[in-house]
Amino acid sequence: MVSKSQIKLITSLEQKKHRTKSGLFLVEGKKGINEILNSHFQLHSLFTTGAEYPAAKDKTYIISPAELKKISLLKTPQDAIAIFQIPKQDDLHLEGLTLALDGIRDPGNLGTIIRLCDWFGIENLICSGDTVDCYNPKVVQATMGSITRVKIFYEALETFLADLDNMPILGTFLEGDSVYSTKFPDNGILILGNEANGISGNIEKLVVQKLYIPQFGTSSKTESLNVATATAIFLSEFRRQKFIEK
Amino acid sequence: MVSKSQIKLITSLEQKKHRTKSGLFLVEGKKGINEILNSHFQLHSLFTTGAEYPAAKDKTYIISPAELKKISLLKTPQDAIAIFQIPKQDDLHLEGLTLALDGIRDPGNLGTIIRLCDWFGIENLICSGDTVDCYNPKVVQATMGSITRVKIFYEALETFLADLDNMPILGTFLEGDSVYSTKFPDNGILILGNEANGISGNIEKLVVQKLYIPQFGTSSKTESLNVATATAIFLSEFRRQKFIEK
Repeated sequence: MVSKSQIKLITSLEQKKHRTKSGLFLVEGKKGINEILNSHFQLHSLFTTGAEYPAAKDKTYIISPAELKKISLLKTPQDAIAIFQIPKQDDLHLEGLTLALDGIRDPGNLGTIIRLCDWFGIENLICSGDTVDCYNPKVVQATMGSITRVKIFYEALETFLADLDNMPILGTFLEGDSVYSTKFPDNGILILGNEANGISGNIEKLVVQKLYIPQFGTSSKTESLNVATATAIFLSEFRRQKFIEK
Repeated sequence: MVSKSQIKLITSLEQKKHRTKSGLFLVEGKKGINEILNSHFQLHSLFTTGAEYPAAKDKTYIISPAELKKISLLKTPQDAIAIFQIPKQDDLHLEGLTLALDGIRDPGNLGTIIRLCDWFGIENLICSGDTVDCYNPKVVQATMGSITRVKIFYEALETFLADLDNMPILGTFLEGDSVYSTKFPDNGILILGNEANGISGNIEKLVVQKLYIPQFGTSSKTESLNVATATAIFLSEFRRQKFIEK
């Protein structure tokens, strides 16, 4: 049974302002919930139609499929919805390659990028203030649990980058040096830009090296690559270089 | 004005059996429609709330926003919906690296993979019979026009691969040889597998070289990469090797 106030809380968490106010966020589906249950994140409450979540113990509420459908944000609700606490912001220690995002708006893209950071061992992800909130339910869903393993910071990106000392700032563009013939620094910042407009002008001024992914198709009509697939290619090439050097 | 029979036709094209029967498929949104209008694909009809599509000329029907909402498959309809003819299947000439997909089910993944083939100049894409139809509206949307530039074939994959002569078959797995230390052949087949289950057993038997993308994160919990981002990494590495060799 889910109470009216619980319904109100759950549906409110679709919006960033309510997540910020309450310090809570939502996760749906067995896989995602289990990934986060088995992390350092703290469970607030879990609503399930009967599936077993032993780690949730006394914070579990059994609800009907009709109730789940009512509170779920998914078209096809799975077997549970969980509320977790947003963890305290980590301290930022820049080391290795750090990824910075300038205005990523699509939740699926941000989720995929967080998952890529996790895979390629990128510890810190810096997001501009206008990047979609990483606790947006669609972002959380797309990270497949990686959100518990990557440190994510929201910063005023221009000021943040301008204040850095001795840290090369690389940016990804549609022109510049080929990613295949550029040696990545051991420590540095790599910026990916907005889906439609790329990296904004005020951030571009701070970039010391522009990188791009060469296009090999015969058609000049091909759209630029999606930002998440571009991130996959840049991070893979960074790791390949370090892998080969060893 | 859109007639009842036009509405019936449009809504039927959401289903593969009706697309196959009629030889038609749907595209929504200005960008996608213009990309396909400017290709060798043939327009059947175009329904717009008033946006200009000069290339559509006498096949254009002006409709109201309410009518568009009725026929659109999108939550937020754009300004037009177009019907195109599915082109005649090309002849298959295997040359260079050919991508093969074994049971890709997610339309967004297939669309992204088609876009990647276009970017990286992969001419032929072979799809197993149980791969999602490339004329599914969500696939078409995700290709951003690349569907007009990549040759896509649906084949009984096991038979197709077994019948190949002198063509190395590479497969992507969670173990095998690192993609970073493997030399890609100039001509060959690279197989990507299903989102949940990877490459099926009967196809795996035909693979002469297994490739994987090394994981660099400290956690062993990281999910495998999404198949579209994995494709980005494999194709990028193939092209990087050829790029560096030049």
